[in-house]
Amino acid sequence: MSKNRGLTPQSEDFSAWYNEIVFRADLADHSPVRGSMVIRPYGYALWENIQADLDRAFKDTGHENLYFPLLIPMSFFEREANHVEGFSPELAVVTHAGGKELEEPLAIRPTSETMIGEMYSKWIQSYRDLPLLYNQWANVLRWEMRTRPFLRTTEFLWQEGHTAHADADEAMAETMQMLHVYAEFAEQQAALPVIRGEKTAGERFAGALNTFTIEAMMRDGKALQSGTSHYMGTNFAKAFDITFNDVNNEQAFVHTTSWGLSTRMIGAIIMAHGDDKGLIMPPRLAPHQVVIVPIVRGKDPEANQPVLDAAAELVASLKQQGVRVKLDDREGMSPGWKFNEWEQKGVPLRLEIGPRDLANGTALLANRLAEGKEEVQLDGLAAGIPGRLEDFQQALYERALEFRDRNTMAVSDMAGLQEQVESGFAVAPHCGEPECEQRIQDETKATVRCIPLEGEDATGTACVKCGQPSGYPRQVIFAKAY
Amino acid sequence: MSKNRGLTPQSEDFSAWYNEIVFRADLADHSPVRGSMVIRPYGYALWENIQADLDRAFKDTGHENLYFPLLIPMSFFEREANHVEGFSPELAVVTHAGGKELEEPLAIRPTSETMIGEMYSKWIQSYRDLPLLYNQWANVLRWEMRTRPFLRTTEFLWQEGHTAHADADEAMAETMQMLHVYAEFAEQQAALPVIRGEKTAGERFAGALNTFTIEAMMRDGKALQSGTSHYMGTNFAKAFDITFNDVNNEQAFVHTTSWGLSTRMIGAIIMAHGDDKGLIMPPRLAPHQVVIVPIVRGKDPEANQPVLDAAAELVASLKQQGVRVKLDDREGMSPGWKFNEWEQKGVPLRLEIGPRDLANGTALLANRLAEGKEEVQLDGLAAGIPGRLEDFQQALYERALEFRDRNTMAVSDMAGLQEQVESGFAVAPHCGEPECEQRIQDETKATVRCIPLEGEDATGTACVKCGQPSGYPRQVIFAKAY
Repeated sequence: MSKNRGLTPQSEDFSAWYNEIVFRADLADHSPVRGSMVIRPYGYALWENIQADLDRAFKDTGHENLYFPLLIPMSFFEREANHVEGFSPELAVVTHAGGKELEEPLAIRPTSETMIGEMYSKWIQSYRDLPLLYNQWANVLRWEMRTRPFLRTTEFLWQEGHTAHADADEAMAETMQMLHVYAEFAEQQAALPVIRGEKTAGERFAGALNTFTIEAMMRDGKALQSGTSHYMGTNFAKAFDITFNDVNNEQAFVHTTSWGLSTRMIGAIIMAHGDDKGLIMPPRLAPHQVVIVPIVRGKDPEANQPVLDAAAELVASLKQQGVRVKLDDREGMSPGWKFNEWEQKGVPLRLEIGPRDLANGTALLANRLAEGKEEVQLDGLAAGIPGRLEDFQQALYERALEFRDRNTMAVSDMAGLQEQVESGFAVAPHCGEPECEQRIQDETKATVRCIPLEGEDATGTACVKCGQPSGYPRQVIFAKAY
Repeated sequence: MSKNRGLTPQSEDFSAWYNEIVFRADLADHSPVRGSMVIRPYGYALWENIQADLDRAFKDTGHENLYFPLLIPMSFFEREANHVEGFSPELAVVTHAGGKELEEPLAIRPTSETMIGEMYSKWIQSYRDLPLLYNQWANVLRWEMRTRPFLRTTEFLWQEGHTAHADADEAMAETMQMLHVYAEFAEQQAALPVIRGEKTAGERFAGALNTFTIEAMMRDGKALQSGTSHYMGTNFAKAFDITFNDVNNEQAFVHTTSWGLSTRMIGAIIMAHGDDKGLIMPPRLAPHQVVIVPIVRGKDPEANQPVLDAAAELVASLKQQGVRVKLDDREGMSPGWKFNEWEQKGVPLRLEIGPRDLANGTALLANRLAEGKEEVQLDGLAAGIPGRLEDFQQALYERALEFRDRNTMAVSDMAGLQEQVESGFAVAPHCGEPECEQRIQDETKATVRCIPLEGEDATGTACVKCGQPSGYPRQVIFAKAY
């Protein structure tokens, strides 16, 4: 039971709070393999809900799922110069299999552009074969030195979309469409306000011409990149010879995109919504939207049975309303212990029914975003729950948005930038020179999170660091980041 | 278009037929890595439907999903003697990662009992923690020498359930429950009649006390093991020290089970239902249950538009009925070419609408299990389709069952057995001695597929090979197998 004792407060040590809540809320556990975690049922149920929503959005936008091999010949990585530079230091390599040394070592996929490039070059012959709009849900491996559950693990789960198009415009439209799919998912399902923007050259995906990102603010004011969408131009098409006969019967290279969102999103949900009591789950993704705790004491079946019956009836009514409800009728744990556990796990609504409530035809309703408890009538209770969950979802989003707005500030000099990134996002013009960007990072530990698609006009402004004219149409977002 | 030319007939070369149809029907493609395949969207959509049905059945029986790491320390395999013997020859081994040689090599999971044993020993302390009813959907790798798409590939997708129980009875009940979940899935969703039975000692999972199987008959009379459920006793509990305080506060080992079903099921569906025209998909799992082909010729919009409108209307009505419908309005392909393609892909029902049909208020309906086409009224057509799909599902099952019954025979001597396994299943008593079983295999290439749970009583019978008394309560099934 020790795991239910007090969490380190966020204000004291946010990082310690994060590491504690991941394990105490049963989201994940350490595994015996360095940097790999076990995703436990409560964390995995959250991932399943994320997958279901995203998968629907992918299919609604015309994508199909498929599956590519885990192992990729090492030589494939060398065909795209930036790609090999970006990924080869992180590869895990299979050198032996079936008791023998392999002729060519195989890498465990860190991402699948290369394997997919090879296959697309087989599948695409004519403009009639285009566009190819494919996605896969898969595990990938990147041998990271410093790991943290969900945020950076050697193995992680994700989806990677890979599309091929006849021209640049169509590929860029796809890249932007998928950025918006991610942003809408984050905002509507995860209650996570995000900034949609483009990465600077130094932060692009290895091999991409443009990388777009959604950036969310965590409750310590740091940024978390929560999904990315890349326009590759013809880089991978040239490396893997993906050509097609165009409408004029001329050979041309396809334009490709890729876009990915991973179990990192779970880290975003934890850190953007959680508080000193633990997690707060957005109802649309919550494994349990409502938990019901029947208040029974001792082993007196005559007193307890009516309470358990009422709880069971409530569970049935809620399920009929399409609510994901959990009945906590475990024996040997006090109601207070259970309340604490479900608060820590971030269940949006908790209903408590005891003998006295039942006699009054009422229950107590605790809302994870509010203090105290509300007495509610049992009669008609279930019918009102979906509306309460929607209100909760909206309130959680508003709360995160208000927090982000409060902790985002335009700054005009390096002193202001330095101070602002201690607790939030700083908005300022930047010249766009990689060396200047690096100097800012060296001084402040903050990076350019993105050049936002919408935001402060940068016309006529001067770089916050070097005073040169702004290199971008808009002022950029500086922040420390995970 | 060459891929739509004639398939090798099943009767001429079943194996060639299989290899051709897998690729021609766009289920899978070869990959550049030996023994690995790419599962293409049409094959993956079938897998998604299999997953959805099974996942619902697992959850209905109280299981939760979670996710364990891909990589397992090599030393873990050595803790269970039979397990290491069974799996170590097939392991793919990561020796280098992040640019360095690893201190301990890591194997890519061939199955996860060992990693899970390690974690369960952390998670289970008391009888209150039991049972643990967990499942994961994952990729696994076994370095097989001879591979065939879906049937035996180095990497494959599956689910592996792993449960831990307080005693043998409960664990055995779980083992049997999951066998029946698989059998009901196969019969009801895949239209695949299966024999439920136990494997002989030599065919058990490496480390199991009992292995149960569902065995299906392919259209060449061979057997395909389509799902297995294992009772491990306390073997893995002892190897990984998974103990708990029982109700009497005494330390005891848990009893574990595991059960798995893989993308092999796709191979079973191909080979149990397909014919010389190609695949036949069971409607409940079919990616497309109905395909609509509008018959338009040339580029006369005035003639074509009403047909396309009627087709679109039909698509909408069918979707409202919950039917998975595909509209094939591709240009540049003749109707005949399309008919051939959808027949090859095994879509249960095809609707054709041309200008003349439309004028008559009719369409043509082709049923993949029947010859010829039926003229049907457009009015009310959609409402009748779900019923027709159910009839198709039932007919497909009956057809497979009738085929299996016709090709299953009791035999009383080795000559009869030898002959019968050339085209089907032979039922005969067996003594149960591994050496005798081996001699039968050497002579006939047939193996004991299982000791069926229900079937011919073996009391007082003598082994078909050696004449010793039957070693099992029932006569066993001999067959050649994939």
